[in-house]
Amino acid sequence: MTVTELAGAALLDEVVRLTRDELRPSADAAEEAKEFPRELVRRLCELGLVRLGLPESRSGLVFCRAIETLASGWLAVAESVHLQVLAAVGPARFGGTHVRDDVLPTMLSGAVIGGNCFSEPNAGSDLSHLETTAVLDGDRYRLNGEKSWVGHANVGGVFNVYCRTAGGGLGGITCLLVDADSPGLSVHRPVRKMGVRALPTATITFTDVLVPRDRVIGRPNRGMLVASDVFVQGRIGLAACAVGLAQGALEYAVAYAKKRIQFGQPVIQFQGVSFLLADMATQIQAARQLLHYAVTRRDAGHDVSVEAAQAKLFSTDVAMRVTTDAVQVLGAYGYTQDSPAERWMREAKLLQIIEGTNQIQRAAIAARL
Amino acid sequence: MTVTELAGAALLDEVVRLTRDELRPSADAAEEAKEFPRELVRRLCELGLVRLGLPESRSGLVFCRAIETLASGWLAVAESVHLQVLAAVGPARFGGTHVRDDVLPTMLSGAVIGGNCFSEPNAGSDLSHLETTAVLDGDRYRLNGEKSWVGHANVGGVFNVYCRTAGGGLGGITCLLVDADSPGLSVHRPVRKMGVRALPTATITFTDVLVPRDRVIGRPNRGMLVASDVFVQGRIGLAACAVGLAQGALEYAVAYAKKRIQFGQPVIQFQGVSFLLADMATQIQAARQLLHYAVTRRDAGHDVSVEAAQAKLFSTDVAMRVTTDAVQVLGAYGYTQDSPAERWMREAKLLQIIEGTNQIQRAAIAARL
Amino acid sequence: MTVTELAGAALLDEVVRLTRDELRPSADAAEEAKEFPRELVRRLCELGLVRLGLPESRSGLVFCRAIETLASGWLAVAESVHLQVLAAVGPARFGGTHVRDDVLPTMLSGAVIGGNCFSEPNAGSDLSHLETTAVLDGDRYRLNGEKSWVGHANVGGVFNVYCRTAGGGLGGITCLLVDADSPGLSVHRPVRKMGVRALPTATITFTDVLVPRDRVIGRPNRGMLVASDVFVQGRIGLAACAVGLAQGALEYAVAYAKKRIQFGQPVIQFQGVSFLLADMATQIQAARQLLHYAVTRRDAGHDVSVEAAQAKLFSTDVAMRVTTDAVQVLGAYGYTQDSPAERWMREAKLLQIIEGTNQIQRAAIAARL
Amino acid sequence: MTVTELAGAALLDEVVRLTRDELRPSADAAEEAKEFPRELVRRLCELGLVRLGLPESRSGLVFCRAIETLASGWLAVAESVHLQVLAAVGPARFGGTHVRDDVLPTMLSGAVIGGNCFSEPNAGSDLSHLETTAVLDGDRYRLNGEKSWVGHANVGGVFNVYCRTAGGGLGGITCLLVDADSPGLSVHRPVRKMGVRALPTATITFTDVLVPRDRVIGRPNRGMLVASDVFVQGRIGLAACAVGLAQGALEYAVAYAKKRIQFGQPVIQFQGVSFLLADMATQIQAARQLLHYAVTRRDAGHDVSVEAAQAKLFSTDVAMRVTTDAVQVLGAYGYTQDSPAERWMREAKLLQIIEGTNQIQRAAIAARL
Repeated sequence: MTVTELAGAALLDEVVRLTRDELRPSADAAEEAKEFPRELVRRLCELGLVRLGLPESRSGLVFCRAIETLASGWLAVAESVHLQVLAAVGPARFGGTHVRDDVLPTMLSGAVIGGNCFSEPNAGSDLSHLETTAVLDGDRYRLNGEKSWVGHANVGGVFNVYCRTAGGGLGGITCLLVDADSPGLSVHRPVRKMGVRALPTATITFTDVLVPRDRVIGRPNRGMLVASDVFVQGRIGLAACAVGLAQGALEYAVAYAKKRIQFGQPVIQFQGVSFLLADMATQIQAARQLLHYAVTRRDAGHDVSVEAAQAKLFSTDVAMRVTTDAVQVLGAYGYTQDSPAERWMREAKLLQIIEGTNQIQRAAIAARL
Repeated sequence: MTVTELAGAALLDEVVRLTRDELRPSADAAEEAKEFPRELVRRLCELGLVRLGLPESRSGLVFCRAIETLASGWLAVAESVHLQVLAAVGPARFGGTHVRDDVLPTMLSGAVIGGNCFSEPNAGSDLSHLETTAVLDGDRYRLNGEKSWVGHANVGGVFNVYCRTAGGGLGGITCLLVDADSPGLSVHRPVRKMGVRALPTATITFTDVLVPRDRVIGRPNRGMLVASDVFVQGRIGLAACAVGLAQGALEYAVAYAKKRIQFGQPVIQFQGVSFLLADMATQIQAARQLLHYAVTRRDAGHDVSVEAAQAKLFSTDVAMRVTTDAVQVLGAYGYTQDSPAERWMREAKLLQIIEGTNQIQRAAIAARL
Repeated sequence: MTVTELAGAALLDEVVRLTRDELRPSADAAEEAKEFPRELVRRLCELGLVRLGLPESRSGLVFCRAIETLASGWLAVAESVHLQVLAAVGPARFGGTHVRDDVLPTMLSGAVIGGNCFSEPNAGSDLSHLETTAVLDGDRYRLNGEKSWVGHANVGGVFNVYCRTAGGGLGGITCLLVDADSPGLSVHRPVRKMGVRALPTATITFTDVLVPRDRVIGRPNRGMLVASDVFVQGRIGLAACAVGLAQGALEYAVAYAKKRIQFGQPVIQFQGVSFLLADMATQIQAARQLLHYAVTRRDAGHDVSVEAAQAKLFSTDVAMRVTTDAVQVLGAYGYTQDSPAERWMREAKLLQIIEGTNQIQRAAIAARL
Repeated sequence: MTVTELAGAALLDEVVRLTRDELRPSADAAEEAKEFPRELVRRLCELGLVRLGLPESRSGLVFCRAIETLASGWLAVAESVHLQVLAAVGPARFGGTHVRDDVLPTMLSGAVIGGNCFSEPNAGSDLSHLETTAVLDGDRYRLNGEKSWVGHANVGGVFNVYCRTAGGGLGGITCLLVDADSPGLSVHRPVRKMGVRALPTATITFTDVLVPRDRVIGRPNRGMLVASDVFVQGRIGLAACAVGLAQGALEYAVAYAKKRIQFGQPVIQFQGVSFLLADMATQIQAARQLLHYAVTRRDAGHDVSVEAAQAKLFSTDVAMRVTTDAVQVLGAYGYTQDSPAERWMREAKLLQIIEGTNQIQRAAIAARL
């Protein structure tokens, strides 16, 4: 299902409106209070954003623009919608009848929040060293282990859990869709993050959690096939978050530089400031076009794992630089919590780390040279 | 006239072939000998590349890909085709009947090589300080002055000369199309450039050169309207040259890193090399998509002076970094003239300077923030 | 009074001990609680650090090493000692008998905390637009105005206040030493900063505050002479803070990279990590030597305003990069408040902004080229 | 023998004079003609510069300043003196009576030019894969193999040749001091380098070259001990070349920016130019102090292999950036061979590659973290 241009434009208009009227005004306080914006996320899901973000919708450009817009107003909301898509990618493509008919719709509508469980205390980006295990016991898997750094952990109703079902490195991993209220599943307190605090991230432990066989996503021991799709989607959604965050920071910095007077004139009149802003604008535009290229190619049916890795690497580095420089343009004011710039800088750092650190992205790109 | 997708693909195939079979094998020797590749340029013009590059052909993507391909093989040839387009931009859009019917076709076919004369010894990028003058004398202009850094100077048959016809800074400039064999026009010896030596650049002096009124491009004192179009085209063509040059350097460096053994393995196995290559590839792709975005928007009828400035700024900075790093990947071998890498690095520097230094581009971008 | 090498070594040993045993263990909790470490600062003053930091002690190297050490443990403490020196610079060199005999000793001993009041809401780095005024009224000045971004504001007992006493831009500014408990002086609540929260910074308003004439530092209308000394000291102390902060972050990242296992080996074994660490170490060493060069030259009697500006510019940019990269090396763990790395990154940003933004430093350096 | 401060000052004065009066005026033409400045190098050796550069002279600061000065005028000359020191390092410290009494003096005086032979076609920086062999045959070694990228190859009278005398990787390497006129030694034509063409670099082949046993430098199979000293010296001398080259480029760019008028004022008035120059100056000063720190520590008896690697890495990266930016500041003029800036940029690239690429330096630094 491809979104028509008209429907896409109407959707984006609504996203722009919500970002301006609801996200931006709420962000500072909610981040300070670490309150997950459950209602906003539900409404965005109801607009169809999660379905739109799925690869099979072939509407990558519209989805990216929506996420960019949301991220320019409040990163946690953009990131939450992105995580919801990530949670639905596997069920939508690889789920069986039960998953597709009974579970997926609740994720698409936002009624149920979803997540993915990849990392473990001893295996960050390195799935070949996964230690969480699932052993078939009748027609249910018995799941044991600990997953760290799970986005949506404390608000999620269902999780894709990657676990070892056989030896052999990446070849023995299975993806199970596990209900959050399963006996034996325990969610820890949210980790205390530098930023994006409204979006809870936590460790989840699994102690003899029983998961029915029809909750296998894809085939047993073939979980890496599911993971690959999720990784590509993860890079794309993260890149869109980065572009939007940077764009918001740029616009704020430009507006400030036009009205802040120093040495008798607006500081944007100084090339020391205006050239910095010009470079920020240029880098953001390059990041955006690199991202749009990746999604356009994906929508056209190409494998874009490299392009997505490039978009993720480049755009998150840009977001880090741009938000840091935005604080600089604002000067002392930018360093205070009276402006949102310091928060954006703290948030940008997350993007360089999650969905595969930028070192992992470089390795992925290099491997295909 | 938009090039159809099919025609575009066939054209690009031919450009790829020519680049591989004729440009790449000839480049080193011709650059060493400073020989302008007249025949190659003519053949490329005959393929229709100049017409394709004109804004009104609305075939920016195909043109950019062609220039990128050429530049990956031999920058001077790509740059020469680009200069030919630049020379035709004014005549094609603003020329009168005589110019469009009699002169333009010879430029499009490559029978006559053209150029633009903007810079002067005391006015580089600052046209408001132009000192070359043209005074109407009956139905002819009497042209006096000196133009520096004219691409194609020593091989051109016709030049767009920007000169002062009235006071008032940018408001009194006129563009005249001047034949190279006009009495009083004198071309100096080529400047000795760091690179791109096969493409002659020189000073031209005008001493009482008489130019018929029907050789005014656009209207008297409205030369800046013509110049604006040329500037945008200049940024786009240069950016395409930069992307292609960088791409050629990357491919060469990757191939070398795969076969060069050190410490018992191909050097591409070391992250110190492979991460560098990954960053090079990522930056080139970002530059390319930024450029393609600009031309696609222009083809759709938008003003893209900012987007073109961004593409020029970003892609030429990328080309400088990538070619410098390509030499580094090749090590001592890269520093010798036995590999083309050192030449590419010398060539890349040109791109950061001409068609408006990258400082000028930043100012242009900043002015529109 | 130059500190002997022996005394210097003993002092540094004590600073190292305090940093390890008292600063580092307390930093996280105190920063979270925004508690100013009054006792620690007093003890460090009692060790003689403030006197040591004064230009006339000609012990710049020992002072820098002490500040670097403190900053590697807890930036707010290093910064507080630095601010105490800054507050004493004017009184020590330009104070009259009363100031030198009665006030200065209490600042050197740490019994009284001091500060400087430069910035105003409408004049950040631009003192020529100062709006705070002081009018002579008998033998007292009547001081009115508002000073923003005053370090130590909420804990200080005495402030150097720069105010306008005559027209003429920089030529009509006077420095007054004002007691914090003067009637009419009102300290606002601390600004909410991104980091370094244990060190309170706030706005101070002056409403008809009466200041005796013997509290003029230097001569009336010659306040810029005092300010110049403070600026140079400000750059030096800040640079030392930056070097120390970066060094602490590097050491932490190296230790982590040696024990964190990924893909079957410590991550420091990957050049993608180890080269990053090598660059961090190299940049820190360059920053340190640039700083030590500046202070050594100052101790030898040279004007080092340019060298100090270079040290401030370079070292704070290094601190920003190094702390950002330290978080990256730590990955997700670095993004949590379970490690101090995220705090260091937030703290580093302050250093690029205060004591003259890095744009101001570049302007100062350029002015002397 | 430490150079006294007075003697050092007098020597530096003479070096400054020679640089201004003889190096700078000759450089362009000689580089174009690829003429080795034999007489200049001899005179500089006669001033005592080679002896001064030896570690045991403990006069590192004076030596560095001399090399920096020379490199600011003509890199090939500075590099040649540096290579002469490099050739003397082994003989001076590890040579037997014959070498120290008969050969070394001719190298110190400049009567004989010397060189080092490390690299081979299949072993660049990786000495453990050396394939050149020497087999003891009576009291002479029979030497066979091929050494590439030998500085001074075509003008040298004596070479330190590192060859394999036993198995076991780095443990079986011996350093032999070989006369250039030995039968069987054949010097190829100079490689065609991107820059520093006045200094010939070439391959040397050894075919049954007989070398007396008293020409072993150090002990058999212990050549790596000699090499280690040479590597440290190599990094220091190269770093001094880089600092000097960058300094020369900066001064030239500043002078140009002060007199070049654009848009009605000297271009140095634009922050887009002046901030670039300020950053160049700052980086050069940081590089210089990092280098001076390394040599001061070495003179005090410390192992400085890490500090020297940092100085080499940092200063050559600075030289590359600074010379590239100097061309940019000069604009089109900088791209022509009418200014020396383009040559400096070509020369700077060499420094990032030789004496261990900057990737090798990073590995060396990382290994000691």
